[in-house]
Amino acid sequence: MPFEIAIGCNVRKSPYFDATVADGVQSFSVYNHVYAPSHFGDPAGEYQALMTGVVLWDVACERQVQLAGPDAERLARYLTTRAIDGMAVGQGKYVPLCDYQGNLINDPVLQKLAEDRFWLSIADSDILLWAQAIAAERGLDVQVIDPDASPLAVQGPRAEDVVAGLFGDWVRKLKYFWFRETELDGIPVLLARSGWSKQGGFELYLRDARRGSDLYRRVKEAGAPYGIVASAPSDVERVESGLLSYGADARYGVNPFEAGLGAFVNLDRPDEFVGKAALRRIQENGARRRRVGFVIGGERIGGITAWQDVFLGPEVVGTVTEAVYSPRLMKNIAVGMLSSAIPDDVEGLETNLGDGRRPARLAALPFR
Amino acid sequence: MPFEIAIGCNVRKSPYFDATVADGVQSFSVYNHVYAPSHFGDPAGEYQALMTGVVLWDVACERQVQLAGPDAERLARYLTTRAIDGMAVGQGKYVPLCDYQGNLINDPVLQKLAEDRFWLSIADSDILLWAQAIAAERGLDVQVIDPDASPLAVQGPRAEDVVAGLFGDWVRKLKYFWFRETELDGIPVLLARSGWSKQGGFELYLRDARRGSDLYRRVKEAGAPYGIVASAPSDVERVESGLLSYGADARYGVNPFEAGLGAFVNLDRPDEFVGKAALRRIQENGARRRRVGFVIGGERIGGITAWQDVFLGPEVVGTVTEAVYSPRLMKNIAVGMLSSAIPDDVEGLETNLGDGRRPARLAALPFR
Repeated sequence: MPFEIAIGCNVRKSPYFDATVADGVQSFSVYNHVYAPSHFGDPAGEYQALMTGVVLWDVACERQVQLAGPDAERLARYLTTRAIDGMAVGQGKYVPLCDYQGNLINDPVLQKLAEDRFWLSIADSDILLWAQAIAAERGLDVQVIDPDASPLAVQGPRAEDVVAGLFGDWVRKLKYFWFRETELDGIPVLLARSGWSKQGGFELYLRDARRGSDLYRRVKEAGAPYGIVASAPSDVERVESGLLSYGADARYGVNPFEAGLGAFVNLDRPDEFVGKAALRRIQENGARRRRVGFVIGGERIGGITAWQDVFLGPEVVGTVTEAVYSPRLMKNIAVGMLSSAIPDDVEGLETNLGDGRRPARLAALPFR
Repeated sequence: MPFEIAIGCNVRKSPYFDATVADGVQSFSVYNHVYAPSHFGDPAGEYQALMTGVVLWDVACERQVQLAGPDAERLARYLTTRAIDGMAVGQGKYVPLCDYQGNLINDPVLQKLAEDRFWLSIADSDILLWAQAIAAERGLDVQVIDPDASPLAVQGPRAEDVVAGLFGDWVRKLKYFWFRETELDGIPVLLARSGWSKQGGFELYLRDARRGSDLYRRVKEAGAPYGIVASAPSDVERVESGLLSYGADARYGVNPFEAGLGAFVNLDRPDEFVGKAALRRIQENGARRRRVGFVIGGERIGGITAWQDVFLGPEVVGTVTEAVYSPRLMKNIAVGMLSSAIPDDVEGLETNLGDGRRPARLAALPFR
């Protein structure tokens, strides 16, 4: 059931919008109030290029929340459940954010640009407003803005060759989540080794929105010898890799222990942070559910458009939050939640993706 | 250039989603992380039905932020620029929300459900997070949640007949922005005289998301004798009526004086509210721009998909934030911003909607 998307002034356009239209984008979603490409007409080919070659993604919808000023680090520490001690300038860290009840409200990467300047590269919720409210109410000396910074991702096993061709061989030594501020033919860019896949690659954070088409074209040209393909973040690859999609897997009322992010909740930190007391209670009581993978039987599936129940006999014991057919594993696979009461060696799980019950069995994440 | 919209688990579905699909929806946008119909394939006919008959809109994307508890009113007062003294239970008020710099961040309707329970019916930004952060940091005794409440709008000159047929003649006496909690064949509903048009009508806030298709069908049936048309909020009518669209007309960095909402900023209130000091400074210094209407010359236009500059000779003096062809006025009309330095009797304004410069002249809002 294909529907049109309304293109209007109420949703922001990425600096790469015109370039992706010229490049044949077919489908969009909306993420952080920005039009975000979802495919270019050949999802299977785009997936193959990500797995075996190199792809180019407009991910400008991954907005930045900049914290700048004397209290920037204090605010960063207070917002995140993870300890960020010892972070160097040029380093990034994955940092879940929770509300005061201990529910996950975003899972950004925190980047330290200077001792007094940080970016949160956010998933799909208005952390700008959240951080502004907290900073102001706590009387912190920090400015919280949406800076001119729009990521363009280059992902896949050949991404490093493409990016090294553009910026030089120093990029090959950049560690995961580390970054450098640089430029390309006068286009200001923050270059990070990061991206929402497990196939390796970089994100080029354009620092001048007027240069979007220029940067896009330069990357396409540099990638041409490697067969670079215009594409978008892949639901299939992210399920195979067990990556969390905030918004799809969790929006309201899921805590980080349930979401599989317990390793990033440092309750032994001496300092206060949002949700700490609630998270301590949740940890003491034990989370009611856990994040799991499923292998699902039956015919090859095309995906799902809403969460689906997981059954053990008549009882609902879990949820499928995304399901795909994996070309690599040649199976239907899914991520979701399962009640903590159900053991790992359970047998007889089922789900219904709209065409009758199918058998489901638990699988470790990432899928292998 | 029609593009598809990706339908996935990362965007919420309205309780009316299945009903609108069955009813032939053609196009969606995303608003408050919810799929929101934008048309059903006949925009011109849908506009005519709104102006002369009655239309049905899935506006479940207009989410509620519920403030409940002993400090609910205190929080409501602190969040809004407008005085809300003397509000009765059952009454609503349009209340701009600003950030600490005095920028508009939403323009909801506040509804008082009880002395200790309020809803903010929000435009497209995550006020849930904003209000939760402020409540917690101020130590207020109030719960802030997204309740199970999904508006279905019935708008147009025959809307009252349709809604009276469903609920009884008491609805004819309901005042603008007032509401009553009631039910329809066991479906719990909050019924308000409100809606995002100036053609009159009601919003039925469904209080049980499982009953979306039932409520939709009941309204369609009751509206059939009046020729009810499934449709969506109309860009054309809202420009004719001068309604503000938060997101389209303003997102970041527009203050309420610039947005034409100065009447809802009560700086003489004795109590503190977010942005008060900044708004006082802005008022003292005078806003740099003002909200205006434009009549635009040249060929009939189809709409715009991004803001466009307004020129006086070589100088950029304003912005068109939405432009449409008005069938009622048989003219191209627009809303936007103009520098405060430009007088109302200016001549020689121009804009460029993508096909060369066109003359533009100022017009009062709403258009008559």
